[in-house]
Amino acid sequence: MPRTVADLATPALLVDLDAFDANVATMAGRWPGLTLRPHVKAFKSTALARRLAEAGHTAFCCATIREVEGMADAGLGADLLLANEVLHASRLGAAVERGARITVAVDSEATVAAAAAGGVREVLVDVNVGLPRCGCEVGDAGRIADAARRAGLTVRGVMGYEGHLMGIDDREIRARETAACMARLAEAHAAVGGEVVSGGGTGTWDLNDVVTELQAGSYTLMDTTYARLGLPFRPALSVLGTVISTNRQGYAVADVGLKSLGMDHGDPSVTGTTVWFCSDEHVTFAEMDGGPSLPVVGDRIEVWPAHVDPTVAYHERLHVIRRPDPAAPVVDAEVVDEWPVDLRNW
Amino acid sequence: MPRTVADLATPALLVDLDAFDANVATMAGRWPGLTLRPHVKAFKSTALARRLAEAGHTAFCCATIREVEGMADAGLGADLLLANEVLHASRLGAAVERGARITVAVDSEATVAAAAAGGVREVLVDVNVGLPRCGCEVGDAGRIADAARRAGLTVRGVMGYEGHLMGIDDREIRARETAACMARLAEAHAAVGGEVVSGGGTGTWDLNDVVTELQAGSYTLMDTTYARLGLPFRPALSVLGTVISTNRQGYAVADVGLKSLGMDHGDPSVTGTTVWFCSDEHVTFAEMDGGPSLPVVGDRIEVWPAHVDPTVAYHERLHVIRRPDPAAPVVDAEVVDEWPVDLRNW
Repeated sequence: MPRTVADLATPALLVDLDAFDANVATMAGRWPGLTLRPHVKAFKSTALARRLAEAGHTAFCCATIREVEGMADAGLGADLLLANEVLHASRLGAAVERGARITVAVDSEATVAAAAAGGVREVLVDVNVGLPRCGCEVGDAGRIADAARRAGLTVRGVMGYEGHLMGIDDREIRARETAACMARLAEAHAAVGGEVVSGGGTGTWDLNDVVTELQAGSYTLMDTTYARLGLPFRPALSVLGTVISTNRQGYAVADVGLKSLGMDHGDPSVTGTTVWFCSDEHVTFAEMDGGPSLPVVGDRIEVWPAHVDPTVAYHERLHVIRRPDPAAPVVDAEVVDEWPVDLRNW
Repeated sequence: MPRTVADLATPALLVDLDAFDANVATMAGRWPGLTLRPHVKAFKSTALARRLAEAGHTAFCCATIREVEGMADAGLGADLLLANEVLHASRLGAAVERGARITVAVDSEATVAAAAAGGVREVLVDVNVGLPRCGCEVGDAGRIADAARRAGLTVRGVMGYEGHLMGIDDREIRARETAACMARLAEAHAAVGGEVVSGGGTGTWDLNDVVTELQAGSYTLMDTTYARLGLPFRPALSVLGTVISTNRQGYAVADVGLKSLGMDHGDPSVTGTTVWFCSDEHVTFAEMDGGPSLPVVGDRIEVWPAHVDPTVAYHERLHVIRRPDPAAPVVDAEVVDEWPVDLRNW
């Protein structure tokens, strides 16, 4: 394993361990133990998940069947929620047979039938709280729960994700809208029953006081989009690049392109510069007025993604680094571990 | 291997074989044999590349060291161009030792030195023809070539990619700008020498008459961004999804999200509907006025990506399908082959 950042082939995904540990501690202060259900989709790594389990969070949230299977097979299957609807649940049922506890979201008779047919035993009724995605209407939640019980499934409660609120810059509006969404979820919960009210995320971590468990994942690594909200979590995920070309026109090019970055939230950032655009395997960035000079060919730089989740999904491994101090340049960091991104694909 | 599309787990990447074959034939009509250097970055699959080699295109273009290594190890290393600059070329040199012919782009003394130190023997001088990315100034090309020769490298010629022109809708403007860019490349070529003038892409395939070899890749699979240009290549790449949720508000949700799609060119398309947005593992789309009704839960749909290259890079395999006729719904298609996406990562 490479011992310093200078030894890594680029592009390489980096996790700053001190920032990660600080983020885990901050979140656990408000949502300790089983009140947090960390969302595996943000990091897709059983090695990272194991650290969260060691911090007391032993129930996890997943977005794909592959994530559920991988967590179960890694011995992290004490309580896994697939927070999405599926029509083909037999792989989930097989993981239940192997000893995992698996709960799946349902929002229709068809998904109830699929869960039962696939051998899943427990469900949450997914309620639409305002995000135009999955989830039944509040008024239909009781009926879906009844259908699930008739199909022999245990209904653990409800979930509802206020995902459309996560990126609202204004904290007051975010708080007000979160309260309105969670009132709908509470109403559905009254009709459904069960002990679980699952929802929320990094953007509403200190605003949502209705859920019994928070489904946050991005807080572990953070990205530039969430950083805009002024949350107390530190950026812990970057992509290491090598500068491969410079010129007399005031811009430079590094080997971190859009195939190593989630681009749905826009361009990444390179500290002290202006990013012009990304190509498949390049980022072009320019000197900012009054900023530091551009690096030279061969220099290592850090590129900060706008969206963590799809960035991680492009990489095979997370290189875990530790800096001598939080402001130290990345080339001074030591590589202390490697966490495989072993939950990719479906 | 699944025999019909109904057997595939979703999301699943599909290649329509008839459309692919037609695209290959159309391109080969204008750029036969070695006048085409297909760009592997578009499809990242040695199985797909082998079909191009069988069609006479045995020289390939790559964007990463991993692509070069994988092509060489698959026996497709007759003439591989890494069309990007690298600072650490020893893995390329090792592939040369194993018998592959490898040429790398250089645009500075530092990248010349890296190529030589890594054991690469042949280079092209990369010239900036207007895209603000890599490539030396036209006036510096002769000097870079001299430096390469002094370092013991064979200079095969020049390359220059007019990538900033690929998406220009107006064909007249695209043609005029391509001519201007290629005049710069020709001027650099006169200073550098060598037999190769490499450049171009799918968007300028019938406009670029300066290059001795065209670096096109997207034409094989196509995407909705290129389709806008009215090129004679057929859409051959889609992502199969399953509808997992519908409702009374006129939208539906399928399990094809932004982690199965390149998003830098924007949202994908679902024929006959309006796509609202993508989440990690979902696409939400609505009925169009006058369009067909929305599908129901459990239906299979095709999602057409806006950008081929980063879409393919998210998947493990291409499922090769054949439809009974070009307009047939995807569920009627037969799965005839599976091409691993074996050139992912770096």
